[in-house]
Amino acid sequence: MDFGKNTPQRPGGLKQCFVSALLYCTGEMQQLHTHMQDKFFPLQLVEGCLRGISRVILLNNPLSGALILAALLLESPWQALLGMLGLLASTFTAIILGQDCEEVSSGLYGFNGMLVALLMGVFSSAGDWYLWLLLPVCLGGAATTFLSSSLAPVLDRWDLPVSVFPFNTVLLLYLVCTGTSNPFFPNHPAQPPGAPESTNHTQLHVPQLLQGVMLGVGQIFACGTVGPSLLILVAVFLFSPILAVYALLGSGISTIAGLSMSVQHSFLYSGLSGFNGALGCMVVGVFYILSWRTHLLSIANALLSAYTDIALSNLLGVLGLPASSWAATLTGTLVLLLTGKNLKEYRIPTGKVTSPEQNLHSHKQWSAANTNATDV
Amino acid sequence: MDFGKNTPQRPGGLKQCFVSALLYCTGEMQQLHTHMQDKFFPLQLVEGCLRGISRVILLNNPLSGALILAALLLESPWQALLGMLGLLASTFTAIILGQDCEEVSSGLYGFNGMLVALLMGVFSSAGDWYLWLLLPVCLGGAATTFLSSSLAPVLDRWDLPVSVFPFNTVLLLYLVCTGTSNPFFPNHPAQPPGAPESTNHTQLHVPQLLQGVMLGVGQIFACGTVGPSLLILVAVFLFSPILAVYALLGSGISTIAGLSMSVQHSFLYSGLSGFNGALGCMVVGVFYILSWRTHLLSIANALLSAYTDIALSNLLGVLGLPASSWAATLTGTLVLLLTGKNLKEYRIPTGKVTSPEQNLHSHKQWSAANTNATDV
Amino acid sequence: MDFGKNTPQRPGGLKQCFVSALLYCTGEMQQLHTHMQDKFFPLQLVEGCLRGISRVILLNNPLSGALILAALLLESPWQALLGMLGLLASTFTAIILGQDCEEVSSGLYGFNGMLVALLMGVFSSAGDWYLWLLLPVCLGGAATTFLSSSLAPVLDRWDLPVSVFPFNTVLLLYLVCTGTSNPFFPNHPAQPPGAPESTNHTQLHVPQLLQGVMLGVGQIFACGTVGPSLLILVAVFLFSPILAVYALLGSGISTIAGLSMSVQHSFLYSGLSGFNGALGCMVVGVFYILSWRTHLLSIANALLSAYTDIALSNLLGVLGLPASSWAATLTGTLVLLLTGKNLKEYRIPTGKVTSPEQNLHSHKQWSAANTNATDV
Repeated sequence: MDFGKNTPQRPGGLKQCFVSALLYCTGEMQQLHTHMQDKFFPLQLVEGCLRGISRVILLNNPLSGALILAALLLESPWQALLGMLGLLASTFTAIILGQDCEEVSSGLYGFNGMLVALLMGVFSSAGDWYLWLLLPVCLGGAATTFLSSSLAPVLDRWDLPVSVFPFNTVLLLYLVCTGTSNPFFPNHPAQPPGAPESTNHTQLHVPQLLQGVMLGVGQIFACGTVGPSLLILVAVFLFSPILAVYALLGSGISTIAGLSMSVQHSFLYSGLSGFNGALGCMVVGVFYILSWRTHLLSIANALLSAYTDIALSNLLGVLGLPASSWAATLTGTLVLLLTGKNLKEYRIPTGKVTSPEQNLHSHKQWSAANTNATDV
Repeated sequence: MDFGKNTPQRPGGLKQCFVSALLYCTGEMQQLHTHMQDKFFPLQLVEGCLRGISRVILLNNPLSGALILAALLLESPWQALLGMLGLLASTFTAIILGQDCEEVSSGLYGFNGMLVALLMGVFSSAGDWYLWLLLPVCLGGAATTFLSSSLAPVLDRWDLPVSVFPFNTVLLLYLVCTGTSNPFFPNHPAQPPGAPESTNHTQLHVPQLLQGVMLGVGQIFACGTVGPSLLILVAVFLFSPILAVYALLGSGISTIAGLSMSVQHSFLYSGLSGFNGALGCMVVGVFYILSWRTHLLSIANALLSAYTDIALSNLLGVLGLPASSWAATLTGTLVLLLTGKNLKEYRIPTGKVTSPEQNLHSHKQWSAANTNATDV
Repeated sequence: MDFGKNTPQRPGGLKQCFVSALLYCTGEMQQLHTHMQDKFFPLQLVEGCLRGISRVILLNNPLSGALILAALLLESPWQALLGMLGLLASTFTAIILGQDCEEVSSGLYGFNGMLVALLMGVFSSAGDWYLWLLLPVCLGGAATTFLSSSLAPVLDRWDLPVSVFPFNTVLLLYLVCTGTSNPFFPNHPAQPPGAPESTNHTQLHVPQLLQGVMLGVGQIFACGTVGPSLLILVAVFLFSPILAVYALLGSGISTIAGLSMSVQHSFLYSGLSGFNGALGCMVVGVFYILSWRTHLLSIANALLSAYTDIALSNLLGVLGLPASSWAATLTGTLVLLLTGKNLKEYRIPTGKVTSPEQNLHSHKQWSAANTNATDV
C-alpha cells in the first residue's frame, strides 16, 4: 500500500488517512526504502542509521529507530551521542570495506557499533562528557564491522545471522583491555548476580518486580528508567505488536528464572535479569512463523536464555566483566539450528525475515493457495 | 542369527542354546531392534532408554544398558532415579521436537540428559532425596536435547557425532548458575587435581592404584565403588570384549599420565583421573577399524585426553568447577578429524559405526572379496 | 631463474654471479626445492626443517630458517636444541600419520612443534639443560601435529590456514597442566601487562622504546636480545624486504597501542607488546596483494591484534598464563575472512601464497595481460 498514491485517490476523510499513515509506518516500511533509493546520499544514510538503531532489538523500521533514539536522548544525551558515533563509525567502515550496499543501507552494519559505543559509555567510570572516550568508541565501532564482515561467511554456511556476536566480543575485549584502573579509560566492574546480598532477605517488592519486567525491554539499550523503556516498547509495538508482547513475555519469564535462582533483588528491579530473556523470546518470534508450537519454543528459549545469562554473569562476574547479551545471542543461534521436523517447517530463511505479522500473512496465503490446489 | 527361530530347529542341547543366547545378546542386538519395531510403544521406549544408557559409554546394547542401570541402583537408588528422569526428559523432548524416530529409538537423544541428571545429583550438596532437584534435572535433560538437535547440523558437516558436548555444556552452565551457596540448589565445589596435598608425600599404594584403574571405568557414570564399576565393565564386555580391554587400557594410561603430573593420590585412587583416558581410548576403538596403527592411535589419544583433562581440571578448578568429560570429548572429536592417509582408511563413517568386532568382521570380508576380485 | 644453469652460461664476472646467487637465495627458493626432490632423504629433511623454522614468521625459505636457527643458538643453545627437537618430533609425527609428503617437506608440520618447544623452555623454571624437559617437548611437538591434522579440514572449508592455532592450544594446555609448583615440570607464571607497576611513573625512555620495536620481531621466537632479533629481521629481509618493513611497522603500531593502554614499560622495552602487532601486520602482507588499500588493512589489523593481545594477556594473566600469539592468530584468521569487495579482489588463495614481491609481480603481469586483451 503506497501512502503517496492512496491519499488523493480515496477521499475517505481523516480516519482513512490516519489508517493509511499507520499502515505506512508499521512493519518494515519497505515503501520508504524503495522510495529512498534514488534520493540524496545523506538522506539514505539517515534512514540506514535509523534502521540500524532498530536492528539492535530485532526490528527493521526507521521510525522505531527514531523513537529509540529519542528514548536514548531522554535517558542520557551523552550516551545517545556515543551511540550515534559508534553507529556512524561502523557504518562508514562497512562502506570503506566495500560491503554490500543493500546490506549497509538496511542498517546491518550499524547496530553492533552502536551497542558497543553505548555500553562503553555505561561502563566508563570517567563520568559523562569525557571526550577521550570518543576515540575507543570509534575504534570499537570499526572493529565490530570487521568482525561482522568476517563472521558472516562462517555463520552463513548454516543460514545463521551474524547477530550481536561482534558487539559482545568487542565489548568484552575492550573491558578486559582497559580494566578498572586504567589511567585513560577506567571502567566500573560488573557485579555477578548470584553474589549474596544482605538486602536479599528483605521482602520482595511486587510492584518494583513488575516494573523490572518492563525495564528489561529498556535494558537491551542499557536504559534503566521507566520513560525511555516505555518509548522503546512503543518502538517495538510500531514495528510489530506481536514482538512487543514477546518482549514483555520474555522479560517476565526471565525474571521468574531469576527468582528461582534467587539472584539479587537489585538485578530483578533494574531489569538487568530480564533483557536476555526478552531477546531470546523475540528471536523465536522473528525467525519462526507464529503458531502454538513456536510459541512454546519462544517460552523455552526465554528460559534457556535467562538461565544461561545467570550462569555467564556469575562466571564473568568473577573477573568483574558483564555477560552483556552473550546468553541471548548463543541460545538464539542454537534455536535457529534446531533440526526437529515439528519446528523446521516454521523456520523462515534468514534472508526472508520480515515482521512476524507479515510472515504470518504470507504463510497463510501460501497455505490457502496450497489447500485450494489440492482441493481441485 | 535369530534366537527365536534357532532354538526349535536345531536340538543341539543346552550348550548350543546358551551360545545362541549369548550371540543374540552381544553386539548391537539388531534383531531385538527390528523385532521391536511393530511392538507396543512403551516397550519400544524401554528398549530405546536402555540403549540410551549404554550410549553414554559408547555402547549400543539394551542389555548393557540394563546392567549399567543395575550398577547405578547398587551405587545409589537416588542417583539412578535422577538419571532415569533425565533420560526420559531428554527423550520426550526429542519426541516433541519431532526428531528422527529411528534416532530417538536407538537412544541417541537420551544419554546426554541422563549424564546431566546423574552429575547434578553427584554435585548437589542438599543430600539424597532432595525432591526439588527433580525440577532442574528435567529442565537440564530437556536442554541437552535442544543442544543435540542444534549442534548436529554443525558437526555433521565434518561427519562428527554430537557426542557428549550437550552434557558437558549444560552441566557447566548449571553449576555456574547455581554455585555453592545457592539457597535452593547448592553444590559441592570441584577440587583441582593439581592442588598440593599433604598426603601426597606418603608412599604410593599400588593395590589402590590398580583398583583406581578399574574405578576409572565406573567413573564414566560417576560410580566410585568397586561393585558397580565391575558391573559396568561387564556391560561393556557384553557389547564388545575389545572395548572392555580398551576401557581398562585407557584408564591405565590415564593413571600413568596422572602420576607423571603428580596429581593428588586421591584422584588416582578414586578413578577420577582415569575415566577421560578410558573414553579417549574407546572412541578410537569404536570409530576406527582395529589394526596395530589404530591401536597406537588409541594409546596416543588416551594420553592426550588424560593430559588435557588434568589441564582443564586445573583451569576450571580455580572456579570450583569440574572438567567432567570435556577432555575426552574434545580429543575424541579431533581424532575423528585426522587427515593422515595412514589412518583415514581405517575410519568408519559415523552412520555405520557398530561394535569393533562387527566392524573388523565386515572389513575382513570386504578385503577378502577385494583380494579375490583382483586375483581373478 | 636457475642458479646452476645461469652461472656457466653468462660469464658476467663476480657482480653478475653475486646477483644471481642473491636472486637464487631470496623468495621461496623454489629451484632448491625442485632440485632436492630426487635427493637423499636426510637432505630433504634438513631442507624441510629449515623451511619449517622460517614458517613460524610466515616465511618459506630454508636460508632464512638457517639464519633464524643461528639467532636461536646465539640467544641460548639450550632453547635452540629444544626448538629443533620439537620441530623433529612434530615432523616425524606427520610422516607417521601419513600426511601429504609435499606439505611435510615444505615445513607445514614443523613450525608449531618448534614454537611449543621453544616456549616450554622459556617458561620452565627448572633452569637450562634440565633434560627431563625433553619428554614433554617431544609429546608437545607430536600433539601439535595431531591438532594441525585435525583442524585442517575444518578451517579448509573457508580457505583458512591452520596457522599457529595448534601451538597456542598445546602451550596453554601444557602450562595449565603443569602449573607453577609441579615437582617435575615447574613453570614461571606470566605477568599481565596491565598490572600497575611503580616504575611506570618514571619517564619513558625513547631509545629503549625504539629498541623494543625491533625486539618485537625477535619476540616471535621468544628472543629478547638485540643480536638475535637483528638476525631474525635479516632472515625476513632475505625472503621479502616488504615483509621486513611490515614486521617493523606492525611492531611499532603495537607499541603505540601499548602506550595508549599504559601497559608496563618493561613490556614495551622487551618487545613483548610488539610481536603480536608485527605478526598481524605481516599476515596481511603475505595473504593480500600489496596496494594502498591492503596497506591500510595491515595497519588496522596490527592495531586490532595489539589491543586484542593486551586484552587476552590481562585475562589469561589472572591465572598466570601467557596470551602467546593468540591475538595475532585470531585477528589474522578474521582478516582472511573479510567479505568486503574492496578487499576480496586482493586476497590470495591460501594454496597460492608466495612472497609479497612474487605475488605483486604475478598480479601486475596478469593485470597487464588483461588490459592488453581489452585494448585489442
